[in-house]
Amino acid sequence: MQRHTGRDMWDVEECQSPRMGSVILGVDGGASNTVCVCIPAAMPFNDPLPVLSRTVAGCSNHNSVGEDRARETLERVMSQALLKARRRRSNVCAVCLAVAGVNHPIDQERMLDWLREIFPSHVKLFVENDAVAALASGTMGKLHGCVLIAGTGTIAYGFTSDGREARAAGAGPVLGDWGSGYGISAQAMTAVVRAYDGRGPETVLTNNILDFLGLASPDELIGWTYEDQSWARIADLLPVVVESAESGDEVANKILHNSVGELASSVKAVVQRLQLGGEDGKHPFPLVMVGKVLEANKRWDIGKEVIDCVTKNYPGAYPIHPKVEPAVGAALLAWNAIASELDGDIRNVQ
Amino acid sequence: MQRHTGRDMWDVEECQSPRMGSVILGVDGGASNTVCVCIPAAMPFNDPLPVLSRTVAGCSNHNSVGEDRARETLERVMSQALLKARRRRSNVCAVCLAVAGVNHPIDQERMLDWLREIFPSHVKLFVENDAVAALASGTMGKLHGCVLIAGTGTIAYGFTSDGREARAAGAGPVLGDWGSGYGISAQAMTAVVRAYDGRGPETVLTNNILDFLGLASPDELIGWTYEDQSWARIADLLPVVVESAESGDEVANKILHNSVGELASSVKAVVQRLQLGGEDGKHPFPLVMVGKVLEANKRWDIGKEVIDCVTKNYPGAYPIHPKVEPAVGAALLAWNAIASELDGDIRNVQ
Repeated sequence: MQRHTGRDMWDVEECQSPRMGSVILGVDGGASNTVCVCIPAAMPFNDPLPVLSRTVAGCSNHNSVGEDRARETLERVMSQALLKARRRRSNVCAVCLAVAGVNHPIDQERMLDWLREIFPSHVKLFVENDAVAALASGTMGKLHGCVLIAGTGTIAYGFTSDGREARAAGAGPVLGDWGSGYGISAQAMTAVVRAYDGRGPETVLTNNILDFLGLASPDELIGWTYEDQSWARIADLLPVVVESAESGDEVANKILHNSVGELASSVKAVVQRLQLGGEDGKHPFPLVMVGKVLEANKRWDIGKEVIDCVTKNYPGAYPIHPKVEPAVGAALLAWNAIASELDGDIRNVQ
Repeated sequence: MQRHTGRDMWDVEECQSPRMGSVILGVDGGASNTVCVCIPAAMPFNDPLPVLSRTVAGCSNHNSVGEDRARETLERVMSQALLKARRRRSNVCAVCLAVAGVNHPIDQERMLDWLREIFPSHVKLFVENDAVAALASGTMGKLHGCVLIAGTGTIAYGFTSDGREARAAGAGPVLGDWGSGYGISAQAMTAVVRAYDGRGPETVLTNNILDFLGLASPDELIGWTYEDQSWARIADLLPVVVESAESGDEVANKILHNSVGELASSVKAVVQRLQLGGEDGKHPFPLVMVGKVLEANKRWDIGKEVIDCVTKNYPGAYPIHPKVEPAVGAALLAWNAIASELDGDIRNVQ
């Protein structure tokens, strides 16, 4: 096969036997790193799933690192996964890339063109936003239902069985993703500054956040945020806000309740647009919950509150906390699409 | 006099006559540029004020450009102002630097030490936050009252006659300066995304903002904000929000009303802490209003609404819209301090 990259990435194939079974590659490219898993195509649905190999690389969001570096990272993480699984590109029957920054059909087409240069023409290729892999990680590869991701950022993403899709939020801090880990933490820091200025009520967030950051006075928060405005660094304050709320602090509780409202409203917007609950709103559909904001804490369980809020309007929503990671979700998505095609072929023959 | 800089900045003095009258330098160092004015020390209080020279340089906030570059910019802008006014350092009797980023006594001390290396020991030196120059530009140099600045960012800063001071807001977008030009614009863009997602009401902000930015769909707002997150670029949307509110849009009106509440609350926090309105809250004090957010528009006048809101609690607040720029305010501050000392000396002699 012609080599289309200027690098030696695929030379590793020389050391692998061409006679082993077919595999599927699933890639999850998030804000901070990229994970690739290799699973067998002829897969028994065991628990745990038989993952042949797993590799990790840096960020592959083309908006953040540029197109060339994004592609290089994606090629590297895939070639290494194949090497580790002792497979060649000729063993690959499907690839699903689910990468942050894929927001338009034009992004998808560009990445598909490039994947077609790397893999033989019979290989099935799928390119999606990383939120789609998170949904698939909860539905074992089936694209139906809604996923809510709330980590450093937040997004809600949904699919109908017939392929319509919708999203809400996921626009970043400037455009008001207030339910995210970043959003919650930024609101908590703002509450500290307001209390200090005399513009807001006193709150234990002041002592708790200053202790956590090793700062002496709320004054110093300004310098701390100017130093490095990375969202993840700010989102790391989330546990402090949750603990402050659990200790009974009203300001912290209000921030978390607002966050629940924001997150639930993203889910409801997607569910409504796709009519996932049917005409009466009561049809069942999966609601996949992903990210550290939605994980249970001691008493304050943001994820549970969001589910309660959504099921008031859509009682058919059934929450799923995925047992596999999004990269496996991406692989399952490809696996599921191939299986559906085979089903279709078999039905057509019958 | 010994030269303490490695540069030739002060060589210009050779071409100036040493026999001319004393002068005062006033410097206003804001977020985007630095302005220096040179005024005569023996100044008749004419209208307009007799400004001998005015020079402009880049940003001198040490947090943004580093200490060395900040100092170089400040030295350059001052030496050029003297050159233009045909004066030498030996003609200078006072300097007031009012620079963004001066938030702590430690910042002040550092800059004073460095000014002492440049100017002869008899020169009176003052170092303040740039908000202080804005206050002085409204009070003709007297440090008493409260200033509200609302441009790209926002801050409220106040002084009592006996030298106590307080501030509110001015902490940047992460820490919730929602009344600022940036804050108003970011909320408007958020409203567009929410309407598009189905999480918020329809608004004419959608068409107006997309038209203004030359974008085809709210989707593209995400890419637009990622491209360049400079606050000033986002704050430039302010006139679009005001026009949308003036055309009757409820979403835009709500954003502007919230902004009024935020800005008034910053002023009230400062006034309350300093008891500028006296014990009964009714004593008169100046409220200096600076920045494009507070300038009158056709119908929607944010500045007027803020004043109405403040005077409900503090009827003695009398608004001042400065006729001179902050750099002149800084010079007047130094002039005023010298005049007070002279007054004191005369009284002591009598």
